[in-house]
Amino acid sequence: MTILPIDVLFERVEAIFHKAGLNAAQSGAIARVIVAGERDACKSHGIYRIEGCLRTLKAGKVTADAIPRLASEEGEPIVRVDAGGGFANPAFEAGLPHLVRRARANGLGALVINDCTHFSALWHEAEALTEQGLAALVMCPSYATVAPAGGSRPLFGTNPLAFGWPRKGQPPYVFDFATSVTARGEIELHRRAGKPVPEGWAIDRDGQPTTDPEAALAGAMLPFGGHKGSAISTMIELLAGVMIGDLTSPEALDYIGLTTLSPRHGELVLAFDPARFAAGRAGDPLERAEHLFEAILDQGARLPSQRRFAARARSEAEGIPLTADEMAQLDRLLEFGLDAVD
Amino acid sequence: MTILPIDVLFERVEAIFHKAGLNAAQSGAIARVIVAGERDACKSHGIYRIEGCLRTLKAGKVTADAIPRLASEEGEPIVRVDAGGGFANPAFEAGLPHLVRRARANGLGALVINDCTHFSALWHEAEALTEQGLAALVMCPSYATVAPAGGSRPLFGTNPLAFGWPRKGQPPYVFDFATSVTARGEIELHRRAGKPVPEGWAIDRDGQPTTDPEAALAGAMLPFGGHKGSAISTMIELLAGVMIGDLTSPEALDYIGLTTLSPRHGELVLAFDPARFAAGRAGDPLERAEHLFEAILDQGARLPSQRRFAARARSEAEGIPLTADEMAQLDRLLEFGLDAVD
Repeated sequence: MTILPIDVLFERVEAIFHKAGLNAAQSGAIARVIVAGERDACKSHGIYRIEGCLRTLKAGKVTADAIPRLASEEGEPIVRVDAGGGFANPAFEAGLPHLVRRARANGLGALVINDCTHFSALWHEAEALTEQGLAALVMCPSYATVAPAGGSRPLFGTNPLAFGWPRKGQPPYVFDFATSVTARGEIELHRRAGKPVPEGWAIDRDGQPTTDPEAALAGAMLPFGGHKGSAISTMIELLAGVMIGDLTSPEALDYIGLTTLSPRHGELVLAFDPARFAAGRAGDPLERAEHLFEAILDQGARLPSQRRFAARARSEAEGIPLTADEMAQLDRLLEFGLDAVD
Repeated sequence: MTILPIDVLFERVEAIFHKAGLNAAQSGAIARVIVAGERDACKSHGIYRIEGCLRTLKAGKVTADAIPRLASEEGEPIVRVDAGGGFANPAFEAGLPHLVRRARANGLGALVINDCTHFSALWHEAEALTEQGLAALVMCPSYATVAPAGGSRPLFGTNPLAFGWPRKGQPPYVFDFATSVTARGEIELHRRAGKPVPEGWAIDRDGQPTTDPEAALAGAMLPFGGHKGSAISTMIELLAGVMIGDLTSPEALDYIGLTTLSPRHGELVLAFDPARFAAGRAGDPLERAEHLFEAILDQGARLPSQRRFAARARSEAEGIPLTADEMAQLDRLLEFGLDAVD
């Protein structure tokens, strides 16, 4: 194991993207989100993602020199950022201060990101809003890999939904989950291990329930929570795809052509100012929320993201542990850039 | 069976509430939502609810002569209605035109209802916004009957979440579901029938899984979809309870004291104008959404609420069928008012 300070890992990841041809806005923003994943021991969204980003770049599906452009006037209620075919993360960073101002002025605000390539977890963005004392709801489509409840073919994406609520003096309440039962990567891991997947995860290409990971990958995943999760996934396609004038998951799959690259679509971020919503009512909303969290913890249930926050505290104190293979891979990616990937 | 035209049933239900002492604003609004439930063959939210409303009134837990009061200035981004201890429905009706104007002006808007007694399904309100060409997300707490995932005691309410999307020339896309696996009434029906409830519905008072309906009623229901549904239920407590300065589900249960009356709390309605969100982008959002709905239907899956809309079409053409018992019950409630209930 090598232990790298967070900022050292950041410099190394940013250098990989820079060398691969991404401009400074793109390199910095995606290095920040990838290193945040690694810092939080969220390995599925850590440095493992670098190769996918480079493959998407090599395939010409993301614009290396895109500069996010604010496409709405100052003071307009909907903040809109055109990512220009670049990654979603620099577009979010460009829109964030505008969204914060709008939400504080109006009590609520929306940030629309259009024409972005998306690969990252949404908790990073929900947390960025909680750091400003705001609550946030973030959602985006993906590419078609999930069948609607009662259906037989891929239509929805894994369509993540993230929510954040600010807490004083400690990490925020944050959840972020796929609206599919599981991630495609989990099925892939079962396939490699030669193990069947649990019932209820997937259907085969004929629409029949299956526990065979090969058949599941050739068929479709299922939404979490049956018809209720399926309805939430539909809502995400409507609000964060159709409504914002961007691609739905089937359209994103058509555009990208295969499921091994990061999809192009849009994203919707809603921000709420608890101070404005609670104005004139008894009690401080952030203090009242603590009673709810205490009641959850008191009965032995957990708050989401606590494992991430514990890992973050360790990484901040001690640095981020990486294996020799991971270190070698970082060196290889820095040396060979796009030539290091298919 | 007696077949009553919709407007005749409405007059009869309104007269029951009026005779029981509710003012015109309260009687009309709650008769409208109850008759809408009966019209849509949604029996659990139809005339069956009248007795519960009267019991809540008789217990002094709802204010019979409340006049909903707009508690925000014209033009403020958050529309706030003080229900004054009356039912939620007249407060929603009072806030609706303001919310519609705000959403059209800003692209999105929020309606906060405070200090209301709540018993009705939320689809009625989501649909009212789709009739104005807007998308809507509606949520409220309830009273504590649901344990958090991994917990052992009631904390959350059944916390409904409803969403509506407008469609041209046909009923809207609408879902409305409890974030618990099932409704408390379903467990009660199993108890009366002497049948066990399915695994995963509930835990007993020691926090252990149970299929015994008595033990389930004495314990807690479980959220749908495991920790994901539990997280959504937490979000509803935060946004539609804490954030709007109103009661959470445990606080609402403390206030009302038992689970057989309608709870007092608040409600949050978010409205989005697809035309504003899609402005400047290719394609009409309402037309693009139809491709998604077609793709869902083409693979044999269903859209939510279709059974309700079919029942509505029948009721509008032929009237609403009521049994002799139901007709006698309406007569009894009209004649004896509050004396007809415990």
